[in-house]
Amino acid sequence: MLILLHLDAGPDERARVRDTLTALDVAVEEVQLGDRTGFVVVGGERSHPKDSLARIPGVAKVVTLTDRATLVHATWKEAGHAVSLGPARFGGGHVSVIAGPCTVEDPDALREVAHVVRDAGAAALRGGVFKVRTSPYAYQGGGQKALAALHATSREVGLPFFTELTDPRQVQEVGDLIDGVQIGARHMQNFPLIEEAARLGKPMLIKRHWAADVDEWLNAAEYALRCGNDKVILCERGCKTADKHVRYLLDVGVVPYLKQRVGLPVIVDPSHAAGDHTLVPALARAAIAAGADGLIVEVHHRPETTRCDARQALSPDDFARLVRDVRAIASLTDRVLAGPSTPLRNSAVGG
Amino acid sequence: MLILLHLDAGPDERARVRDTLTALDVAVEEVQLGDRTGFVVVGGERSHPKDSLARIPGVAKVVTLTDRATLVHATWKEAGHAVSLGPARFGGGHVSVIAGPCTVEDPDALREVAHVVRDAGAAALRGGVFKVRTSPYAYQGGGQKALAALHATSREVGLPFFTELTDPRQVQEVGDLIDGVQIGARHMQNFPLIEEAARLGKPMLIKRHWAADVDEWLNAAEYALRCGNDKVILCERGCKTADKHVRYLLDVGVVPYLKQRVGLPVIVDPSHAAGDHTLVPALARAAIAAGADGLIVEVHHRPETTRCDARQALSPDDFARLVRDVRAIASLTDRVLAGPSTPLRNSAVGG
Amino acid sequence: MLILLHLDAGPDERARVRDTLTALDVAVEEVQLGDRTGFVVVGGERSHPKDSLARIPGVAKVVTLTDRATLVHATWKEAGHAVSLGPARFGGGHVSVIAGPCTVEDPDALREVAHVVRDAGAAALRGGVFKVRTSPYAYQGGGQKALAALHATSREVGLPFFTELTDPRQVQEVGDLIDGVQIGARHMQNFPLIEEAARLGKPMLIKRHWAADVDEWLNAAEYALRCGNDKVILCERGCKTADKHVRYLLDVGVVPYLKQRVGLPVIVDPSHAAGDHTLVPALARAAIAAGADGLIVEVHHRPETTRCDARQALSPDDFARLVRDVRAIASLTDRVLAGPSTPLRNSAVGG
Amino acid sequence: MLILLHLDAGPDERARVRDTLTALDVAVEEVQLGDRTGFVVVGGERSHPKDSLARIPGVAKVVTLTDRATLVHATWKEAGHAVSLGPARFGGGHVSVIAGPCTVEDPDALREVAHVVRDAGAAALRGGVFKVRTSPYAYQGGGQKALAALHATSREVGLPFFTELTDPRQVQEVGDLIDGVQIGARHMQNFPLIEEAARLGKPMLIKRHWAADVDEWLNAAEYALRCGNDKVILCERGCKTADKHVRYLLDVGVVPYLKQRVGLPVIVDPSHAAGDHTLVPALARAAIAAGADGLIVEVHHRPETTRCDARQALSPDDFARLVRDVRAIASLTDRVLAGPSTPLRNSAVGG
Repeated sequence: MLILLHLDAGPDERARVRDTLTALDVAVEEVQLGDRTGFVVVGGERSHPKDSLARIPGVAKVVTLTDRATLVHATWKEAGHAVSLGPARFGGGHVSVIAGPCTVEDPDALREVAHVVRDAGAAALRGGVFKVRTSPYAYQGGGQKALAALHATSREVGLPFFTELTDPRQVQEVGDLIDGVQIGARHMQNFPLIEEAARLGKPMLIKRHWAADVDEWLNAAEYALRCGNDKVILCERGCKTADKHVRYLLDVGVVPYLKQRVGLPVIVDPSHAAGDHTLVPALARAAIAAGADGLIVEVHHRPETTRCDARQALSPDDFARLVRDVRAIASLTDRVLAGPSTPLRNSAVGG
Repeated sequence: MLILLHLDAGPDERARVRDTLTALDVAVEEVQLGDRTGFVVVGGERSHPKDSLARIPGVAKVVTLTDRATLVHATWKEAGHAVSLGPARFGGGHVSVIAGPCTVEDPDALREVAHVVRDAGAAALRGGVFKVRTSPYAYQGGGQKALAALHATSREVGLPFFTELTDPRQVQEVGDLIDGVQIGARHMQNFPLIEEAARLGKPMLIKRHWAADVDEWLNAAEYALRCGNDKVILCERGCKTADKHVRYLLDVGVVPYLKQRVGLPVIVDPSHAAGDHTLVPALARAAIAAGADGLIVEVHHRPETTRCDARQALSPDDFARLVRDVRAIASLTDRVLAGPSTPLRNSAVGG
Repeated sequence: MLILLHLDAGPDERARVRDTLTALDVAVEEVQLGDRTGFVVVGGERSHPKDSLARIPGVAKVVTLTDRATLVHATWKEAGHAVSLGPARFGGGHVSVIAGPCTVEDPDALREVAHVVRDAGAAALRGGVFKVRTSPYAYQGGGQKALAALHATSREVGLPFFTELTDPRQVQEVGDLIDGVQIGARHMQNFPLIEEAARLGKPMLIKRHWAADVDEWLNAAEYALRCGNDKVILCERGCKTADKHVRYLLDVGVVPYLKQRVGLPVIVDPSHAAGDHTLVPALARAAIAAGADGLIVEVHHRPETTRCDARQALSPDDFARLVRDVRAIASLTDRVLAGPSTPLRNSAVGG
Repeated sequence: MLILLHLDAGPDERARVRDTLTALDVAVEEVQLGDRTGFVVVGGERSHPKDSLARIPGVAKVVTLTDRATLVHATWKEAGHAVSLGPARFGGGHVSVIAGPCTVEDPDALREVAHVVRDAGAAALRGGVFKVRTSPYAYQGGGQKALAALHATSREVGLPFFTELTDPRQVQEVGDLIDGVQIGARHMQNFPLIEEAARLGKPMLIKRHWAADVDEWLNAAEYALRCGNDKVILCERGCKTADKHVRYLLDVGVVPYLKQRVGLPVIVDPSHAAGDHTLVPALARAAIAAGADGLIVEVHHRPETTRCDARQALSPDDFARLVRDVRAIASLTDRVLAGPSTPLRNSAVGG
């Protein structure tokens, strides 16, 4: 069960409810859902009926955890705010574009790409430093040195950055340096990693595995929410099928499906879906037209020099055109493209 | 091999080339590709080298049929025109919406839906009369009686109609009554049906099977082009995957992929993909934003009374809103929504 | 609803029941299910309750058609016999192997393959004469001339043959010449074809489409049973997935699943699944070990000379070894390999 | 590149080759491939041509790493031995069955199941203690306490055990207690986990992800081999498809495909594929008939009491029958079922 407190419950009230539950011998975990505090009851459902717990002073609502991904499904809508990170804002009428190179290789190249995407209208940077590669002989990323370069460039251009972590020990080592954590598709069900990353309390981009159904994906997010982190952004990046004309089949229909059901922002990665830069702009327009809260796009000014995914990186010109189209389609559906020059309600780095 | 004649080759020249080939003992089939005539060489490739045939007077170009779906791939771009049917025009800078009930059941209901979609901006009607149902106990369609009702309503509202044929014998019996033939997903590789339907010379909508790759789909179209029918419209309607949140996963990426490679118009059926009317508008917007040349959409003013696919039919209001969005997104990508009130280059019923 | 008569109901009783139903204004279709006659009520379910119809003299049981594929699911078990064709017997404790070339090309080659497979233990021949090819430029089969050669060879070696039909008009033209009809995967939902073929009253091999689920497959069989043909053999031939190591992924689990639920024989085509002769023997052994009632296998003494699927044809030696393994594994699971030299209960050609 | 030393190269020779490479400024990692030592050159391929390195004294062969999964593909065949763990032996003419409960819950129940499977012929135990569950609210396993119970039971019945690890930190904490490590399907591309686990030097069961192709799977194994662990067992457990009649579609064809190409043992998990105990025996027979080197099967004497996957556990009687069938089919294909009472070449716990 999930015990939700009243919106105005302060620390004293939280403590009182916790004490009451403890006295009842009910094991709970505290969760923060937007502006609201809740307690997840772990394992004691049978001894204490829902109706009794609902009578504890300070408790607003008790939700039975029979549906999976309960925090995602049942609660978020009440809290209802977007996920923000610096000038980027995902959801709540805002659309943001994350852009940058596939992989951080050369600091100078990184700086050039970062300026390009900032000037074109990106609200956050992307760049891989700990890469997950199918083959152990493929380039594994620049590690901590690359992370330092990404951090420095981020501060230089004034955009926060997202990067993927792949090992719970990395979270402990370098988590503090990171603005937004990306959980890659291959790690969508690496729950020790998700839990460790969630505890950083920073925005988390959870990519959908290419064979995950919606229930599996939302439950991965649920692992994060259960750790008290409500800054989860869902990212669709395409499904594996027998098709050969695209690398992965982008599931554009999952965007409206989720927007009708959960409050978490949903963004789309057209670059990994298409695997081909000539298809990326059309997929990006489709995603925004379907209601996506943002995009994460690979851009490079000299794709032919990169060690990874050269075929899917957009040129600076193509990216600038993409941002213009995204702005126009977002406006058609009553939304605003967020970016460095757009005034927002909440713009603190870290959420 | 494909032997293409010069654009200005008249009947005499065609006859001369054919005679020359016959004298060489090469079996050929004449094909009409837009404004251009060609001969497909059947089986004699080994005896007569390409370079020799290219020297026959009147021959512009000889294309080796090593790529499959050659007529679709190699030739169409040269001819380069849209497929038109009455006020509907697909491709060449025009977008059209086909709309109507899943199935023609009740003539009065059909008339009501037809007026609704015409007034909202549809350029053609849809309606099933010979249904392909998984179960033999499901409603199999109203047959010839329903076809007569569809024809009468079509003339009343001034919109042409598309309907599915499922048996080569039906083509022979009722083909003359039909404006545009639909080949359903389950019959995408029913080549006797496609060939018989192609010989009607009318616009043909070839739906992609839910497990067909692009090569299989284009080769199905190639069967029609080989019979001399160049009025093929490709229709994406979703792929079968393990997902449960949509009925089929709409492959929006196939739209730009095809638009870069073939000249045939590509439209999208968001109704059968979603299987749920609440998702149809978002998929429709995404399809047009990705570059689709049109849509085929199920609409009903009282979906609760229908015998088939009630869940996916749009209400009249939702459909009117969808057409407005389609017009706006088409305009953003420099295209025009074609319809009864839009002046067009070519508006003869039948192409 | 399905109205089943008593097992010993004769022609008079059938006529009486039919008259009673007609007098009640109930539209019915007569079906023959093994040794039992039934009437399928079409559309009148609402006016005449099940309990009333069950009181008509001569009626044994009334089954409500709420489950789809009702004849397949609910009735067959009662009749409970195998499908036989000459020396071949599928089900009822017998396993049979159908073998031959992919396509009938050269009459001499066909005769050689036919002798090889007969001597090794095959109980029926296979050979394509009307081919369904993805590309219109691929070899489309030898047609009626090839069919005549297949028929002559069949009589020479004393084995019946299966061949695919692809057009309802073909059924009418050449159906009489054929021993067993194959419905190919691409035509699994071509219901006009299935119905026309079922009316021949001959054994029918219905292949599963590579993207069909069990319900869709059994409903295709239901279309045949509804036409009164109870000699349907289901054939699994692999599912389309993203994998590249096999052409199709053989669903060996569908064999025990079906054997627990329906009485129709289930056989396996390892050749089209694997697409590679080196994998065929292992898949064949697996199929029989899982309980399959037979196999259909491509064999050729000189695969390098064939125009179609050369890579998957077994050599004569490999085929002889395969039959030995099949016999041994069948025996391990208490079944007998049927063939020309095995005495059987019922060996009339045609069922 | 992979530099392989002569089979009889001793420590001195290894050191000399390493020194030579270091002097050339080539970064290498030493790998042990069966009885053979190799050096993987990391990143220096361009400066030192293959032909030069092959002239270093003591070097037998230099393999270019252009094929992915090189150690798996190119080298293992030379070493060519099975993976052994106590009485269990996978490959090299031996077949072994791993069996036990899905999850270690109750120590008494565990002991009962362990005796049952040992007596029936299992050669190793299975039992989950760190569970990977889609939902955070599902039972997450008994952790270290359950591991202690599994270890104690294993010693009591004289069978080694496999259990899944899910976090590189767990490997460090409890790796010493474990006989064989299982990498679950969801963690197949969790490379930090695989590398940490591989360094234990113990047998590793790497399950195939339900959407992984063969290349991805073998590359996951390559990550382990690159860390010097040559005791990898590949385990097929079914692919995710749109089908509903089985939980996952068992890819029985991957068994012969791999046995023709790599030396690693390949086993099959019919329990997770089927998701239904009534289908498990048929899948198990099919797997062995196709050439699998073993099985991993869930068994429980009272499945109705378990918290996880109750539907797929075999009863003791069904399991005993399955082992008898496996023994018979293995013998038909010239292999021997390994177990506690079967004498083997090498039976040390730990490989």
